[in-house]
Amino acid sequence: MRISQLAAATEIPVATIKYYLREKLLHEGVLTSATQARYDDSHVRRLKLIRALIGTAGLSISATRQVLLGMENPPESRHDLLGIAHHAVTRTAPDDVDLSPAQRLLDRWGWGAETCDRDTQAALVDALHGLSDAGFDAPAALLDRYAAAMRDIAAADVESVPTDSAEAAMRHVVLGTLLMEPVLLAMRRLAQQSASFQRFGEAES
Amino acid sequence: MRISQLAAATEIPVATIKYYLREKLLHEGVLTSATQARYDDSHVRRLKLIRALIGTAGLSISATRQVLLGMENPPESRHDLLGIAHHAVTRTAPDDVDLSPAQRLLDRWGWGAETCDRDTQAALVDALHGLSDAGFDAPAALLDRYAAAMRDIAAADVESVPTDSAEAAMRHVVLGTLLMEPVLLAMRRLAQQSASFQRFGEAES
Repeated sequence: MRISQLAAATEIPVATIKYYLREKLLHEGVLTSATQARYDDSHVRRLKLIRALIGTAGLSISATRQVLLGMENPPESRHDLLGIAHHAVTRTAPDDVDLSPAQRLLDRWGWGAETCDRDTQAALVDALHGLSDAGFDAPAALLDRYAAAMRDIAAADVESVPTDSAEAAMRHVVLGTLLMEPVLLAMRRLAQQSASFQRFGEAES
Repeated sequence: MRISQLAAATEIPVATIKYYLREKLLHEGVLTSATQARYDDSHVRRLKLIRALIGTAGLSISATRQVLLGMENPPESRHDLLGIAHHAVTRTAPDDVDLSPAQRLLDRWGWGAETCDRDTQAALVDALHGLSDAGFDAPAALLDRYAAAMRDIAAADVESVPTDSAEAAMRHVVLGTLLMEPVLLAMRRLAQQSASFQRFGEAES
């Protein structure tokens, strides 16, 4: 198909497709003349994947490139798959980052240095700083309830990783990690509205 | 204190503080001369709150303004508090949005039109589209496990809302909703690393 047909098939504007080609997120088509190329289903699939990573997961162009490269070159170890996904969405922490505000949680839930990376530990510290900066006092019991819920879904995430092929495992881990985040947040908001309606809605209406 | 001292106390640059003043996110100080104003602890608290909303929760300037306005003018109904927070982080859905891709989840978990708003239902549809666009097949059992975990933490969120004052309830709902999202995502990543290490790490090392 021509680029205009590729745009129609994916509902992505031609200018955006050309931008992804220039940025090497999308592979070139087969040249059929000096100014025209032919594209196929592999371009449609790739464009949908790019759109999900940028539009749904909210990744930057450079994080998207990192993730796509990682997916094309799966690491030897299954455990390292997760690093590709997490690295794309986690800021690099300074060497001297102080983890003590999260120490109780890290210790209590087994998220120490032997299993977890420092940048992700620092992301939890940052998030907790945001709470205390805003004067929001999150009780330890509430944080533990969050941690227990996350332990449960993370177990489900990891159990569901296919073991038949490295390629399938990689897609599953990277996409499941990044694209389930917006699902999770939308579900939390729906569940909050439902719980709030139960507690406050009926008495006042 | 002077604006330079306010900057030192909050570690926010003077130019950024002036920007927040122009954007009316931060209230003016008391003028002490034609070119100088005096600021107090209320400005420090407000700046920390603004930083948490923009830096930690990732809100835009206009969403931050909406949230701050909502916090200053709490709605009559406790249930509507949640709307202020959710509205700031949820795109407005088109009138003709098709909710059918999420219908099973909405029905099964009690997230229908009587308790939940349409924009948040549409956010779940968008997130599910992202998964299918990327060719990621999320089994219904996995989505249900996510939903169950979110129901549990949403119940904890709503139970923890204080009922002694409208002002306290409002702060709690708005900040707890927005600022706990990054906590949740950081915890999920840590829990995934820990679970992945249990499943894949030891056998290969």
